[in-house]
Amino acid sequence: MVTDTIAAISTPMGEGGIAVIRVSGPEAVQLAERVFSSKPKLSEAASHTVHYGFVRNPSTGEKIEEVLVTVMRAPRSFTREDVVEFSCHGGIIAVKKLLDLLLAQGARLAEPGEFTKRAFLNGRIDLSQAEAVMDLIRSKSDRSYSLALKQVEGSLSVKIKKLRQDLLELMAHIEVNIDYPEHDVEELTNKLIRDKCEAAVQEIESLLKTAQQGKIMREGITTAIVGSPNVGKSSLLNELAQENRAIVTDIPGTTRDVIEEYVSVGGIPLRLLDTAGIRETADIVEQIGVEKSKGALAEADLILFVLNYNQPLQEDDLMLIDQIVQKQYVVIINKIDLPRKMDMDVLQSKFPSNRIVMMSITEHEGMEQLEKTISDIFFSGQLESDDYTYVSNSRHIHLLNLANNSLKDALNGIQQRMPIDMIQIDIRSAWEHLGEIIGDAVADSLIDQIFSQFCLGK
Amino acid sequence: MVTDTIAAISTPMGEGGIAVIRVSGPEAVQLAERVFSSKPKLSEAASHTVHYGFVRNPSTGEKIEEVLVTVMRAPRSFTREDVVEFSCHGGIIAVKKLLDLLLAQGARLAEPGEFTKRAFLNGRIDLSQAEAVMDLIRSKSDRSYSLALKQVEGSLSVKIKKLRQDLLELMAHIEVNIDYPEHDVEELTNKLIRDKCEAAVQEIESLLKTAQQGKIMREGITTAIVGSPNVGKSSLLNELAQENRAIVTDIPGTTRDVIEEYVSVGGIPLRLLDTAGIRETADIVEQIGVEKSKGALAEADLILFVLNYNQPLQEDDLMLIDQIVQKQYVVIINKIDLPRKMDMDVLQSKFPSNRIVMMSITEHEGMEQLEKTISDIFFSGQLESDDYTYVSNSRHIHLLNLANNSLKDALNGIQQRMPIDMIQIDIRSAWEHLGEIIGDAVADSLIDQIFSQFCLGK
Repeated sequence: MVTDTIAAISTPMGEGGIAVIRVSGPEAVQLAERVFSSKPKLSEAASHTVHYGFVRNPSTGEKIEEVLVTVMRAPRSFTREDVVEFSCHGGIIAVKKLLDLLLAQGARLAEPGEFTKRAFLNGRIDLSQAEAVMDLIRSKSDRSYSLALKQVEGSLSVKIKKLRQDLLELMAHIEVNIDYPEHDVEELTNKLIRDKCEAAVQEIESLLKTAQQGKIMREGITTAIVGSPNVGKSSLLNELAQENRAIVTDIPGTTRDVIEEYVSVGGIPLRLLDTAGIRETADIVEQIGVEKSKGALAEADLILFVLNYNQPLQEDDLMLIDQIVQKQYVVIINKIDLPRKMDMDVLQSKFPSNRIVMMSITEHEGMEQLEKTISDIFFSGQLESDDYTYVSNSRHIHLLNLANNSLKDALNGIQQRMPIDMIQIDIRSAWEHLGEIIGDAVADSLIDQIFSQFCLGK
Repeated sequence: MVTDTIAAISTPMGEGGIAVIRVSGPEAVQLAERVFSSKPKLSEAASHTVHYGFVRNPSTGEKIEEVLVTVMRAPRSFTREDVVEFSCHGGIIAVKKLLDLLLAQGARLAEPGEFTKRAFLNGRIDLSQAEAVMDLIRSKSDRSYSLALKQVEGSLSVKIKKLRQDLLELMAHIEVNIDYPEHDVEELTNKLIRDKCEAAVQEIESLLKTAQQGKIMREGITTAIVGSPNVGKSSLLNELAQENRAIVTDIPGTTRDVIEEYVSVGGIPLRLLDTAGIRETADIVEQIGVEKSKGALAEADLILFVLNYNQPLQEDDLMLIDQIVQKQYVVIINKIDLPRKMDMDVLQSKFPSNRIVMMSITEHEGMEQLEKTISDIFFSGQLESDDYTYVSNSRHIHLLNLANNSLKDALNGIQQRMPIDMIQIDIRSAWEHLGEIIGDAVADSLIDQIFSQFCLGK
C-alpha cells in the first residue's frame, strides 16, 4: 500500500547536542547505505544496531556529517517499516545538509505526523493511540502526560474494542434471529438488546463523565490573573512559574508574538493568558489595570483575582467583581504578611469562603491552598486515581456522544416496538461511531486531517 | 580521573518527534538497567545495540515513557565512557520525567558541554576539536559548517601538532648543543634556529591570514538593512530569507525579545540586525525611516543601503550617506523594473561603481550580483577552496599571535647574539602557546570556561 521512503528531521529545531533524522520505508536501508559506509554494510547489519561513521555526498565525496546510524528493520520499528535513524551533531546546518542529501537520494520529505500515520496504517497502533502520541508530546503537566501515555498504550482502545465486540455479537445474534419472528424469540431478542444496549450506554456515559477532566488535563485551563496595579500579579506568575520551572514552556506560535505559557498547579495545567503583558511590568510598578484585565476576563475559564491585604478594596476591584463571579474564579488575598487594611467583611459578603485564598506570595505562603482550591473547583475535590481511563480528545468525545445517542435510539425503538431491523441500524451506527475512534473504517480525508496536526518528524 | 555518571537532555527543548537523553559514565548501564528492563538485560547487551521497551519508576512501578535505549560501551563512544541514550517521544514532560528519574537513581545532571569535555579529557579529541564541535552546532551557513567539520576532524590540530613537533625537535637539538659552545657549532645552531623559526612564523602567519575570513564564517557579518520607507527593505529581507529558508533560524536569547536572524548569502552568513522591526512593517507601508536606521548603522559591520530606482534621491538618503561610507556597505538600487527617477550621476559620484548593485527584488533580479559584491568586500574576491584550513576561533587566533611573537623574539635574539638559553625560552614559550590551542597543559579553569559555553547535553 505504502511504497515510498520518507525522511524528516525528528528533533526540535534549535541548538542542541543531538539532532535526529528519521528515514522510513522500503528503501530506507539502501538509501542510507548510499551516503554512509560502514563495516558491515548497513544492508548486512543486524536490526537494532548502531554504526559510527561519516555521511558523504556520493556525487562529490564531500564529508557531510559525523553520525551514529541506527538500523531498525521491519516490522520491529515505530512505523513497522525499515527505519534508519541518523543521529548527528545538533546543528541546524548539519541536519539540513543531511536531510537535503537524503532527499536528493530519493527519499520524500515526510509530512507532519507521517511516521505515526504509517504506524497506524501498518496496524501497529490504532487511531486513538496515534492521537495520544501527539498528546504525549504536547502534554503540559504530569497528569496530562500520564493520561496520554496510558492512551498510547491503548487503555481507551481496550475499552472501545470491548464495547464494539459486545455490539458485534449482539448484531450477529439479531441477524440470526431476524428471520424467525416468532413471538418468544422476539421477546428474548428484545430483552437481550435492551440489556446489552443499556450496559453499553452505561459504559459510554462513564467514559464521557471523565471528558471534562480529561479535556482540562489535556488542554489546560485557560487562566487569567487579574487585579489592580501592584497587588502582586507578576509575583504570583513568577511564583507559579518558578515552582514548576521545567514545566513552563514557551511555544512560539505561527507568529512570533503568540506565546503560550503553561504552569502546572498540583498536576493541573493552567494556560496563562497575557503573561507577556504581566511580565513586561515585573520590574517597575505593575501597569496593568482594570481595562487590560477585562479583556483577559472574557477569554478565561478560570480567573485568579488578586487583591492586596494591605490596602482597602479599590473602586476598580469592585468593578471587576460582577464579571468575575460569572466565571470560575479564586480570590487571592495577597500580602497577608503586612498589616490588614482590606475590609474582609465586604469581601466575604461578595464571595463564598471556599473561593478565598489567603497568601503571602513573597513569603511563599498559601500556594498549597491555592492548588487545593483550583482542584476542588474543576475536579469536585477528587483527582481521579492514576489507573482511570480519561477521554480527553474532542473527536473521541464527539463520537462517544454519537454512539450513545444511537444506542438510546435503539432503546427507544424497542420500547416503541419498532421493527428489529430498524433497531439493528441504530446499533450498527453506534458500532461504527465507536470504530471511528480507533480508526476502523475512517475516511482517508479524516486520517489526513488528524495527522496533519502532528509535528514534523513524528 | 572521572568517576561519576552524568545525564542530560541532548536534544533542543520543544515539541518534536524524538527527544534524546544521554547518560555517560561508569554507572551508565547499571543505572539505565534499574529503570528499564529488556531481554537481554542492558548489562548483558552487546555494544551499539538498540532495545525497545518502557521506562518504569523502580520505586512505584509507574510507567514513565516508551523508549528506544541504545547502549554504547567504552571506549567506542562519544565520551569514551559507557554511554546509554534514551530516545523517547519528544515531549517536554516526558523528557523531564525521565531525566528526573535518572537523577534520582544517582546520575548527576551534566554541565553544559560536559560530554564533550569528557571526550577531551579521555583523549578522544583535542581541545581545538572540542571547540569545533560547538562551532558545528552553531554554524550559520554551509561554509561555516564545513569549516567547523574540518576542524572537528582535526585539520587545525594536524597543523598545530606538526608545528609543535618541529619546535620540539629544535629544542632538543639546542639542548644537546648548549653545553658545547664552540664557535662553529654555535653558528650552525643559530642557522638552524633561524631557519626553523622562520618556517614556523611563515606557517603561523599563513594560518592567521585566514583568521578574518574564518571569524566571519564562524560568527557571521553583522548586517543592517537601511533606507527610507517603502524602498523595499522588507522585500529584500524576505527574499534573502526565502532563498535560504532552512538556514534562517530564530534563536531565542535569554530574554524573549532578543532574536538573532541569520541568512546565508553565497555561503557567507549575515547576522541581520532589527529584522523584527523590518518584518513588523512588511504588510503595511514600511514605517522604518532614517532615525531607526541610524541606530542599526552604529552596530553593523556591513550596511545594505536600499534605494528606490523609481524615486529621486531623498534628503533622508543623503543624510545617511556620510555615515554609510565609514563602514563596509553595498548600495542596492531596487525596483529597476520601474521607470528611472533616481539621479544615477549623483549616486555614482558618491559611491564607487563596484559597491552599487542594481536589483529588482520583486522580479528576483540582482541577487547573484549582491552575493558577489559582498564576497568581494570580505574575501577580496577569493572564497578559498574547501580544503583550506581556516582559523576562526578568537582563542586560537590570540594564541597563534602569541606564539608568533615569541618566535619573532627568538629571531631577534639570534640577530642580537643573545645567549642561546634565552632564545630557548622564547621557543619554548611558542611551543607552549601552540599547545594551549589543542589543550596540551591547559589550566583546568580555562577548560571549564571553554566548555561552559557549550549547550546542555553536548
